[in-house]
Amino acid sequence: MKLIRFGAEGHEKPGVQLENGSRLDISGFGRDYDEEFFGGDGLEELKEWLSLNQANCPVVGEDIRLGPPLVRPSKIICVGLNYAKHAAESGMDIPEEPLLFFKATSSIVGPNDDVVIPKNSQKTDWEVELAVVIGKKALYVDEASAMDHVAGYTLHNDYSEREFQLERGGQWVKGKSCDSFAPVGPYIATQDEIEDPHNLDLWLKLNGEELQNSNTSDFVFNIPTLVSYISSFMTLLPGDIISTGTPAGVGLGLKPPKYLKPGDVVELGIEGLGSSRQQARAFE
Amino acid sequence: MKLIRFGAEGHEKPGVQLENGSRLDISGFGRDYDEEFFGGDGLEELKEWLSLNQANCPVVGEDIRLGPPLVRPSKIICVGLNYAKHAAESGMDIPEEPLLFFKATSSIVGPNDDVVIPKNSQKTDWEVELAVVIGKKALYVDEASAMDHVAGYTLHNDYSEREFQLERGGQWVKGKSCDSFAPVGPYIATQDEIEDPHNLDLWLKLNGEELQNSNTSDFVFNIPTLVSYISSFMTLLPGDIISTGTPAGVGLGLKPPKYLKPGDVVELGIEGLGSSRQQARAFE
Repeated sequence: MKLIRFGAEGHEKPGVQLENGSRLDISGFGRDYDEEFFGGDGLEELKEWLSLNQANCPVVGEDIRLGPPLVRPSKIICVGLNYAKHAAESGMDIPEEPLLFFKATSSIVGPNDDVVIPKNSQKTDWEVELAVVIGKKALYVDEASAMDHVAGYTLHNDYSEREFQLERGGQWVKGKSCDSFAPVGPYIATQDEIEDPHNLDLWLKLNGEELQNSNTSDFVFNIPTLVSYISSFMTLLPGDIISTGTPAGVGLGLKPPKYLKPGDVVELGIEGLGSSRQQARAFE
Repeated sequence: MKLIRFGAEGHEKPGVQLENGSRLDISGFGRDYDEEFFGGDGLEELKEWLSLNQANCPVVGEDIRLGPPLVRPSKIICVGLNYAKHAAESGMDIPEEPLLFFKATSSIVGPNDDVVIPKNSQKTDWEVELAVVIGKKALYVDEASAMDHVAGYTLHNDYSEREFQLERGGQWVKGKSCDSFAPVGPYIATQDEIEDPHNLDLWLKLNGEELQNSNTSDFVFNIPTLVSYISSFMTLLPGDIISTGTPAGVGLGLKPPKYLKPGDVVELGIEGLGSSRQQARAFE
């Protein structure tokens, strides 16, 4: 299944996207895509409910805004420098073990919402990433069973203000957590939809020019390793997002570096996970 | 008012603690201490409700477990090295601007719950901290109006695994986010209860021996500065916790360093915010 949420910001309703691309309103199912949904048997129950009720679900118009495809989760755990070439362009070594940081969940927006350049920002940058959505609570899980804890995958643009991240004292979180810095979606593809998450093309264009183009086969640490590793430091709750890092081609790595200005258009996508588009604007 | 929550883990009910120390169950009020409560007029409405209904509220038995005094918030933002002497004992300079990091909200527990020493941990450490609870959404607020965005204060032990934090690759979050690493409470004191949050004694004892003893007058950055500063990087949502840093006397700073072992008892308190007690145990 492909899970979507649609409607005005803060009032999103759950839906599904069909094989043919059309979207259905599943409000009648009575549950939203939250911790309880992912952690319980929500996916199974929805599948069953759809088999009986799909024909009666209202169609969602193509002009309706897409929201983030899940309710605000407890956390977004990001993995730094998880593609060798991106580590090189950032002037950093490939990490010996996964480098983790958090992004505030208040930064989550819909896949095609504007990205807001923060006040006093000179260095707002892009990062196309494959995000993993946790399905089952995970604490001290081993790599062999790690995939049992994954609900699905989605597209994430891990926007980053490089001055805030790297030049304002110590930890990266300041440059990762601004409002609108986490467009998620268009949809969550459940695990069964993606044959091999470690062999997906991903790309990002700025104003039509392709700047990132890689494949998740270039991961330094793969998904089972990441889930298992993170779960040795904290409990992953259903709905939590693990963003698996970005490949080369971010603004910081260009020579000279290049950052977003109002009016710029960022488009990105991952094979099997659709595409998203954000227009940059200044904070008003 | 002093807000408490009580009952079994995951099933806490809201209550209040009276001047005389007795505790009342305010379930009849019909709301819990969550984002909507703090962000709306929850505190005012509760005060009004209590003026009419206090006499009919059930008393909470003294042997009932206290939970964290608020529903899991969107984020915990911690301030590093915010007392000059603690920076010195950590071998670090006083930061030029606030040093921020996140702690997973899944680490929140009640004030007297056990602290669980994680698997493979050799360096589980304590940090008594004054925590600020946000009352009103804050984005780009100036220092002059910052206190209008504060609901109240509470006691927090920012447990930290020093090897995970400092020796496992880059960012601090790995050592800050283990389950049970954020005992919060016993209660949230609303802002009117604390005459001057910048002049409060705080202390921590390990097995009866006082190891931390300072006063919030030693802050490098005060609360209005922190609220304003953080709100320039991200939106603070109602219920969000800002933990304002710890004074000297953590295990990392002792010569030789000293860390928790199973059976150890940590007690801590802040003037006007009560005290808490955690017994250390190994993960089972």
